[in-house]
Amino acid sequence: MSGDSNNNKKTILNDCQQQNGKETADDNKELWFNETAALDFDDLVISTRINRLIHRQRSDYQNILIFQNQVFGRCLALDDAMQATELDECAYHEMIAFLPLNVHSDPKRVLIVGGGDGGVARECCKHQLVEQIVQCEIDQQVVEASKRYLPFMSQSFKNDKLMLNFQDGYEYVRKHPNEFDVIITDSCDPKGPAESLFDSEYYQQLFQCLRPGGVICSQAESYWYELKFIQLLFDKVGKIFPSVSYATTSVASYPSGQIGFLLASKEANVNFAEPKHRFTEQDCEHFGLKYYSESMHQASFVLPRFVRKALNIS
Amino acid sequence: MSGDSNNNKKTILNDCQQQNGKETADDNKELWFNETAALDFDDLVISTRINRLIHRQRSDYQNILIFQNQVFGRCLALDDAMQATELDECAYHEMIAFLPLNVHSDPKRVLIVGGGDGGVARECCKHQLVEQIVQCEIDQQVVEASKRYLPFMSQSFKNDKLMLNFQDGYEYVRKHPNEFDVIITDSCDPKGPAESLFDSEYYQQLFQCLRPGGVICSQAESYWYELKFIQLLFDKVGKIFPSVSYATTSVASYPSGQIGFLLASKEANVNFAEPKHRFTEQDCEHFGLKYYSESMHQASFVLPRFVRKALNIS
Repeated sequence: MSGDSNNNKKTILNDCQQQNGKETADDNKELWFNETAALDFDDLVISTRINRLIHRQRSDYQNILIFQNQVFGRCLALDDAMQATELDECAYHEMIAFLPLNVHSDPKRVLIVGGGDGGVARECCKHQLVEQIVQCEIDQQVVEASKRYLPFMSQSFKNDKLMLNFQDGYEYVRKHPNEFDVIITDSCDPKGPAESLFDSEYYQQLFQCLRPGGVICSQAESYWYELKFIQLLFDKVGKIFPSVSYATTSVASYPSGQIGFLLASKEANVNFAEPKHRFTEQDCEHFGLKYYSESMHQASFVLPRFVRKALNIS
Repeated sequence: MSGDSNNNKKTILNDCQQQNGKETADDNKELWFNETAALDFDDLVISTRINRLIHRQRSDYQNILIFQNQVFGRCLALDDAMQATELDECAYHEMIAFLPLNVHSDPKRVLIVGGGDGGVARECCKHQLVEQIVQCEIDQQVVEASKRYLPFMSQSFKNDKLMLNFQDGYEYVRKHPNEFDVIITDSCDPKGPAESLFDSEYYQQLFQCLRPGGVICSQAESYWYELKFIQLLFDKVGKIFPSVSYATTSVASYPSGQIGFLLASKEANVNFAEPKHRFTEQDCEHFGLKYYSESMHQASFVLPRFVRKALNIS
């Protein structure tokens, strides 16, 4: 799409290498970020106007783009995908953190794989039972950019509970068996650098890395666009973990506006929809939660019939 | 946006008058449908490729466009907004129909305002308690186009329960006090022809048009992009009806992927989240439901905390 859409009025900014620096020279140009909506198709494109370009950089791993948009506020995009916006990151970060933390009976030690913007760490730090969080982010440049330009997400990088490593999370997981109660994988889509975070081998390693009773939660795509992918993933993980489930959340800036989480536990017969720790309204208020609540936890496991059927969830 | 994006590779098809006929002449052109995502901003655009143009027409009221897209299947767009796609119309039509029908204790007589594609009527016809459905669609051309090109939605136009009038629903409502148990307003966005379907006067008329115990359900925008609009609407309707609520559904082809319904009842203290008629899995199977279920009914009233706060829902 990028090439096709360039004319004298519009510049698509997805690729830092191609256009580095040029975009500020010509004030008459509109700047846009374009995202192709489904993994295997380019038949659907979401274009977000860059009202103000804040930061762009090619790191060792990806293109990092931070900008201001009138609808979404401050936005972070990595390569060709929107990662988080000020408007709706709450719906993603609160859910990917509190779903597994509240499903585990005593989530003392937490591992975050990915999550370089800091949003997941911010939420995990709030949980009273969490004592230590290890985070492995492969791309230090994302963390640095977030610290500088996305303080609403990166505020917890200085929290005492958090130990941040700039290394491959997959490698870390392999070398630390039986250490964590909860492992959250906050990855990009399964193409490019994050591809290996969706294979059987990774989930095998996660299983080993968990202590008894451990729970995982991973970003698991949209049921509208990637149902077959989710089906395959669900099958894979179901062969490794005795309990598996899928929860959904609404994120306006993601293609389809829906994204899911795959949850799995080392215990059998876990009812993921029933949180073991129940946040009162006062708790939610105290934690500054905008999206998550006990009833949202429960509701997020209610799936459309066509999804339940595809995943064999009764 | 339309003008900005035209170059020698892309043609935006939203406006039938400007480009009528030309798009098929040049096979090298890509055809796209562009939608601006939020009511008051043009900073976010969703572009859907037209793999095959099926029908386009300028009716007395609007531009009608029907096309094939690889992700969504068969699509219907009116003016600048996607209305329904084969992939996800189930999530809209099943919910806007069964939420009010199952909240009412005996929904014998149903009025549909709008809904020219036929999707709402299709669902209402399935309900065993519904005896008669009157539908008022102002634009006969939408119905004709749907009958011809969207059979999966228009199949119920021939159902014996349905009486279809080509007239202004607002006018019909005004002239038929105390006649209906459920009134469903399946309208476009509140700009252009459907604007009056969001004002106090319309809701006043709906109240009169209902029999005792009557329930309404109206398309009520996205909480991500139009929260202030929903707040105002909620306030207006709350001054007319003793019980009001808001439910949510996930529709991939709509901007933000989320759209809500405003429900209201002539009765006080209605618990909208608890359906009075409970569909078993067998019922759902029998009705061919892809999205709605009893648990989805309940879950659809669970809203993010920031929405609950904005609408003063505890």
